[in-house]
Amino acid sequence: MKLTILGCYAATPRTFTNPTSQVLEINNNLFLIDCGEGTQVELRRNKVKFSRIKHIFISHLHGDHCFGLVGLISTFRLLNRETELHVYGPKGIKEIITLQLKLSKSWTNYPLHFHELVSKDSELIFENEKVTVETIPLDHRIYTNGFLFKEKPGPRKLLINEILKYNIDVTLYQSVKMGKDVVSNDGELIPNHLVTDSPEEPKSYAFCSDTAYKPSMIPQIKNTTVLYHESTFLEVNKELAAPTKHSTAIQAALIAKEANVKTLILGHFSTRYPSIEMFKEEATTVFEQIELADDGKIFTF
Amino acid sequence: MKLTILGCYAATPRTFTNPTSQVLEINNNLFLIDCGEGTQVELRRNKVKFSRIKHIFISHLHGDHCFGLVGLISTFRLLNRETELHVYGPKGIKEIITLQLKLSKSWTNYPLHFHELVSKDSELIFENEKVTVETIPLDHRIYTNGFLFKEKPGPRKLLINEILKYNIDVTLYQSVKMGKDVVSNDGELIPNHLVTDSPEEPKSYAFCSDTAYKPSMIPQIKNTTVLYHESTFLEVNKELAAPTKHSTAIQAALIAKEANVKTLILGHFSTRYPSIEMFKEEATTVFEQIELADDGKIFTF
Repeated sequence: MKLTILGCYAATPRTFTNPTSQVLEINNNLFLIDCGEGTQVELRRNKVKFSRIKHIFISHLHGDHCFGLVGLISTFRLLNRETELHVYGPKGIKEIITLQLKLSKSWTNYPLHFHELVSKDSELIFENEKVTVETIPLDHRIYTNGFLFKEKPGPRKLLINEILKYNIDVTLYQSVKMGKDVVSNDGELIPNHLVTDSPEEPKSYAFCSDTAYKPSMIPQIKNTTVLYHESTFLEVNKELAAPTKHSTAIQAALIAKEANVKTLILGHFSTRYPSIEMFKEEATTVFEQIELADDGKIFTF
Repeated sequence: MKLTILGCYAATPRTFTNPTSQVLEINNNLFLIDCGEGTQVELRRNKVKFSRIKHIFISHLHGDHCFGLVGLISTFRLLNRETELHVYGPKGIKEIITLQLKLSKSWTNYPLHFHELVSKDSELIFENEKVTVETIPLDHRIYTNGFLFKEKPGPRKLLINEILKYNIDVTLYQSVKMGKDVVSNDGELIPNHLVTDSPEEPKSYAFCSDTAYKPSMIPQIKNTTVLYHESTFLEVNKELAAPTKHSTAIQAALIAKEANVKTLILGHFSTRYPSIEMFKEEATTVFEQIELADDGKIFTF
């Protein structure tokens, strides 16, 4: 599981910081999450192949999370993309994009599908043989979803020495990987646990930005491998968090601790602070496994 | 007259080239022309004070000329702008911007005025005591205007030694500057030409992008100080110019020559070419005073 942070700063773009966008590679699937202005340039800078982007998830319609989407969609057209593209985001996103394509007479020459979200409850919005994606309802000034990406459990691992010892036919390997007991070439019923080992534990990634402190999300993200949780403010400005429906670093850490995640990545830093190190200092008073997002940073889990 | 090129490359943004946007300072007025994605970052990089931008002119609704507008308007809001902002552009631009502000529940807290253009004839769209701005109808795939910025003639220059010699009262200086004949303290009528010199010749700037070769614009831009004319293609790709309604470097130079402008700036270069020097080489076969635009370049005339 590989996470590339293209941008992780709040709202006002500055010369050297980018608004929210990130690329998650999980179980060989690649997902773009949020798409602030300038995302297409950051994708190039980070050498992400445009053709690998087939699914884009937009948390909410504040500009720092979506103003780069129309440009990316248009650039795909200019590059003669043929692969279909799926966009998941709040109701309204289709109108925003199609209005601009219509007025510029620049319809895409590739299939463009919008999956508009309206539910205030979590829902499964994507599933293939390797990954599922669920929404995580968040609490922000406008309708906002986080996203929970989960690997599906892989096949059981064959213990090849045991397989040979019990004389299991090669045509049965697939069944064995699926956890089935099989009959050996010697006519003996071989219990699966004698010839396989458990698959690696499936990894999961929860993206939660933007949101006020919302403990009700904890059951859904319990034991998640990695949680990206916004931390717009430090304690010194904590009185700003509730009215703007953002979180502090300590609030993000409280969620991580209660949800028992393995690692918490902090992001969506307000650009008012000269350094982001203080976010880590404050959050580690509550939870130990803290990482700081930063533009261009790559995490591998 | 000072022109700052924020971006001058066609469509597809690359890591190190920006789509169209430029800042014109003329007679102490500052105008933003076009606003491709990333313009707000380039404005910061080039240290243009946001508060000085009060008028934005959008040539047409192709993304590489306008996708940065909504982000800039939103950032002004985040910075608690109070000054009013005027946006001049094709019909539809108001709907594009207001839809996004509505869906993000982020109305501006400063007055935002749209001046939508529909005329296919040139029209005067801005005038104050120092500058006028007219549209230059262009020929592109969608409705497109160039813009002609003209200084108004300044006051006549007082020849202070003559003024003293003819004993003209200080209360009459303003009338003298306005070109009037006045009566001196000695009761003598003094013809204006004896005590003043002509003002500096008013400067003018014509922005013409994007457009096919369109000689019918020549009478309007005749004798313009500086013409910025798009030159998307080199001769090697000249067969692409007509169908895409763009121009070649040589076509831009032909317009400049016929219009007898002082200087031609070439821009809107296709990103297919490894270097832009060839644009100058080709254009100078037709017209001598050629400059090449480039991102971050500043011209003073």
